[in-house]
Amino acid sequence: MENIGKKRVKMDGTIGIDLGGSRIKAAILSEAGSTVSQMIKPIASRIDYDPILKQLVEIVQGLLDQDQHRVNGIGLGVAGLLDRERHTVLTSPNIPALNGRHPAGDLESQTGLSASMDNDANLMAIGEGQLGGAKGFSHYIAITLGTGVGGAIISEGKLLRGFNGGGGEIGHILVNPDGPRCNCGANGCLEAYVGQAGIKRYSSRYPRFEGIGLKELNQKAIEGDEDAREVFAYVGIILGAGLSGLVNILNPECIVIGGGVAAAGDFLFKPLHKEIHQRAFKVYRDGLQIRSAELGNWAGVVGAGLIAQKT
Amino acid sequence: MENIGKKRVKMDGTIGIDLGGSRIKAAILSEAGSTVSQMIKPIASRIDYDPILKQLVEIVQGLLDQDQHRVNGIGLGVAGLLDRERHTVLTSPNIPALNGRHPAGDLESQTGLSASMDNDANLMAIGEGQLGGAKGFSHYIAITLGTGVGGAIISEGKLLRGFNGGGGEIGHILVNPDGPRCNCGANGCLEAYVGQAGIKRYSSRYPRFEGIGLKELNQKAIEGDEDAREVFAYVGIILGAGLSGLVNILNPECIVIGGGVAAAGDFLFKPLHKEIHQRAFKVYRDGLQIRSAELGNWAGVVGAGLIAQKT
Repeated sequence: MENIGKKRVKMDGTIGIDLGGSRIKAAILSEAGSTVSQMIKPIASRIDYDPILKQLVEIVQGLLDQDQHRVNGIGLGVAGLLDRERHTVLTSPNIPALNGRHPAGDLESQTGLSASMDNDANLMAIGEGQLGGAKGFSHYIAITLGTGVGGAIISEGKLLRGFNGGGGEIGHILVNPDGPRCNCGANGCLEAYVGQAGIKRYSSRYPRFEGIGLKELNQKAIEGDEDAREVFAYVGIILGAGLSGLVNILNPECIVIGGGVAAAGDFLFKPLHKEIHQRAFKVYRDGLQIRSAELGNWAGVVGAGLIAQKT
Repeated sequence: MENIGKKRVKMDGTIGIDLGGSRIKAAILSEAGSTVSQMIKPIASRIDYDPILKQLVEIVQGLLDQDQHRVNGIGLGVAGLLDRERHTVLTSPNIPALNGRHPAGDLESQTGLSASMDNDANLMAIGEGQLGGAKGFSHYIAITLGTGVGGAIISEGKLLRGFNGGGGEIGHILVNPDGPRCNCGANGCLEAYVGQAGIKRYSSRYPRFEGIGLKELNQKAIEGDEDAREVFAYVGIILGAGLSGLVNILNPECIVIGGGVAAAGDFLFKPLHKEIHQRAFKVYRDGLQIRSAELGNWAGVVGAGLIAQKT
């Protein structure tokens, strides 16, 4: 019993923060890959930078105070476009306060902990690839179906970053040049069909679905409502048609799909699978795994914690 | 004058061979990057492998006999799908004799020269990237518009090869799920619109264009024929719509376009440019270069010679 009273040896960990348009999610990621001391806060401002930075520092301090881990760094996920070196937020449509700012650098100087930053969709892909639905794959596509359609591409185990450090905007591949207007300004992007507004537009062909949300629609599908199932089948078919083109050019081993709509499960996945099977090249589609994301809303936080392990 | 009569010191070079569905093109590529002793032969067979291999050996011998270069290796381009290690041709739709064969390995054992193999579209991309229209770029997309629509993607200076060593099938991204049937079996692929058959189908809306080829159509466009110009504008718009999606996911610095249709020049490139400018994300389209291929029909041979330099 001689150890009683001795301070427990601290385990190593990192802090992952997902800075979203309405909420900030944060947690400590243990070296073993589990999130502890999870925290969710409404964002202090979308317009002013200082309150956001103050809030981020408080969150870090709060996590350090309540947890036993020895924290070695911070990873920060941001919904927006970053510069090539991932120091500066170029544009964040939902949090304009971040435009032109370098929140990771500021967090680093205020906390003394090293901090890295990346796009939230990239971090979701990293999280799902190392600890979630795409674990073990070196070539995969990660997609989140939410208000918009986000995504990232991993090739040979590395994020495809393009010339400006961008790319991976899977929501903005073409589905039909004469299709409905997309949030990005173009017509007929994938997001214009399978983003929240697109699904709503399609489901409004059934007047009784007007005004009901995706969760309720999913519940109806589970209870056997054929029309609700048809809506998810439609989403699966359009998604499958668009993704088939990506399978033909990227030849991935796995597509991992997350976000609210993915909860529809087989109502979505079966038609999606069938469409890819009918459209994509045989050699590329054979053996292709289509999987549900496993880390749910915490994939971005996990990914953020993972990039902090490397700094 | 004491050097007269002395044998000239041989310069280093490689042999590049482009094994196409109807013709074999070959040349010696000097270290400085110029092709010498170019050679074009009709392919000896599409069905039987032995006559093809015999012909390849004769071509290599012919080039070695007539040229002064010290040849260090052979690169072979094949229209078809190769295995991951690029040793075996899995399927070559136009030259079924090659299916399951390893022509580079056989050429190596019969000539004593080391030989490597790659897909012809990949070699075109390598050729254009190192010595042609995409010279100096590390992130680019290469496209050939011919009977079909071929392509390859280079990211961070490397070919994107996907899980099976494939991918880059730019002709088979989606343009419209309800579009015309494509050669690949799916509906509404890019190739179904801007491949030779697709352009022919579209131009047949002008009865006087029935039965005329692309060269003639191009000549008419040059002479001021508005309908002929409209056909190329249509091709440019569809191509631009499809490529915009690739710009959004791959964020390249350059798109280099070759093949017969590209000869239409501005009649094609202007509408293409405009469409990409209207559709693609601003940060990604700004600074994006859209260029004509510069090595013409010899891009594949140059690329083949270039991969042989590395072996």
